[in-house]
Amino acid sequence: MFTPRTPRIVAARRLQRRKDRDQSGRFLAEGPQAVREALAAGAVLELFGTAAGLTRYADLAAMALEVSPVTDEALAALTETVHPQGLVAVCEQNDVPIAAALAKQPRLVAVVAEIRDPGNAGTVLRTADAAGASAVIFAGDAVDPYNGKCVRASAGSLFHVDVVRTPLTVLDLLQDSGLQVLATSGTGEDDVDSLLDGGQLAAPTAWLFGSEAHGLPSSVLDAADRRVRVPIYGGAESLNLAAAAAVCLYASARAQR
Amino acid sequence: MFTPRTPRIVAARRLQRRKDRDQSGRFLAEGPQAVREALAAGAVLELFGTAAGLTRYADLAAMALEVSPVTDEALAALTETVHPQGLVAVCEQNDVPIAAALAKQPRLVAVVAEIRDPGNAGTVLRTADAAGASAVIFAGDAVDPYNGKCVRASAGSLFHVDVVRTPLTVLDLLQDSGLQVLATSGTGEDDVDSLLDGGQLAAPTAWLFGSEAHGLPSSVLDAADRRVRVPIYGGAESLNLAAAAAVCLYASARAQR
Repeated sequence: MFTPRTPRIVAARRLQRRKDRDQSGRFLAEGPQAVREALAAGAVLELFGTAAGLTRYADLAAMALEVSPVTDEALAALTETVHPQGLVAVCEQNDVPIAAALAKQPRLVAVVAEIRDPGNAGTVLRTADAAGASAVIFAGDAVDPYNGKCVRASAGSLFHVDVVRTPLTVLDLLQDSGLQVLATSGTGEDDVDSLLDGGQLAAPTAWLFGSEAHGLPSSVLDAADRRVRVPIYGGAESLNLAAAAAVCLYASARAQR
Repeated sequence: MFTPRTPRIVAARRLQRRKDRDQSGRFLAEGPQAVREALAAGAVLELFGTAAGLTRYADLAAMALEVSPVTDEALAALTETVHPQGLVAVCEQNDVPIAAALAKQPRLVAVVAEIRDPGNAGTVLRTADAAGASAVIFAGDAVDPYNGKCVRASAGSLFHVDVVRTPLTVLDLLQDSGLQVLATSGTGEDDVDSLLDGGQLAAPTAWLFGSEAHGLPSSVLDAADRRVRVPIYGGAESLNLAAAAAVCLYASARAQR
């Protein structure tokens, strides 16, 4: 039974730090839902579980190549939530080069540009997956997609879509591959409802989302095909990022059905 | 200059607890954006500010009936965020009876039923306001709308819409006032896009949202006019609450334009 001081637990725990994730190309996924999706995607290198966790989720333990029983303390050391339900997996990072993602000729793509909040980024990942996007691009100085909070907020979607990490200067590549690039902005000249009415959203589209605090950089806004706002009908100044992304991505999903 | 031990600061600090908010009918709003909206709504009883905060936001200080300078330590004791920017207001709770909200014949209403997470509830409040809803109903054992996290997540929308607190058995009242009651459910028999296509969303509508973990109680689902799902086009199991609410409320806004 591995304890918090067992070398493999000590090594796995380091994956809570970005530097160690970047160097090793690995990350942690905790809880049965994330572990199930990671197993289905073939991303699990090693599964750690408490006796109770491995008994309760015996179907998942049976799917993993390597399973190690750990103490409750070791599991607590590897996880960040209050109820990890006895399971945590060391996974292989599964992001793909931008060229590989674009070679599939995606019809719907989400780009999170310089978004630092892992919960927001993970929620956009989940929403993009739900709306049928096939790739989510983390551009510029964005949060690490394998950050624990981002993995949890994505609720498994990290394993469903092509995750791509690129510099901010990716718009040319998107446009060259036939995607119209729509940059969200509270002061955009087009609104998403008018584009939906006008039929413009039926075309293959990459939606760009910036941080709630700063929005998209002006260089990105200038290079996009359109700057698009979500209409505000009431007294609110703006929508939060997850809500704005849901409105935009589902408008495209509706147009592309 | 008030310190953390000044009796009025000690009393105001108690408003971080629900019991004291419920008993006093007051709550705290921190930071210039929330204070500005609270002042515009006539809800501010007393404004506390550091010297720097009161100088930087002199326009807000000029609008408050009672302004008290406080030490940095006193401000820190009253606030929950890292950067409250030197201002916090004691406000009067502004929720209205359900009859008062329905007497205005609202065309779009959001109901958060038994949602315990204050960040989620506040985000739905903000999204409902943005989509043009005129009332947001906290039904059953829902989070306190005046919880600090909920106030912050609402980004001022708490002061823009009619906030109502009711028991869970509110559907009759909604229906009697001419609202169709649409209950969100991952397994609903209608999907939101089909209702939008069919013209059903043009009618005055109350959208019901349950907790992410448990959804809506079956008694509520049964009593609703329709159970509605947001279509999932990709591999995600579901949307998070904020994203689902944005899709539903903006579909109604689109139909009611």
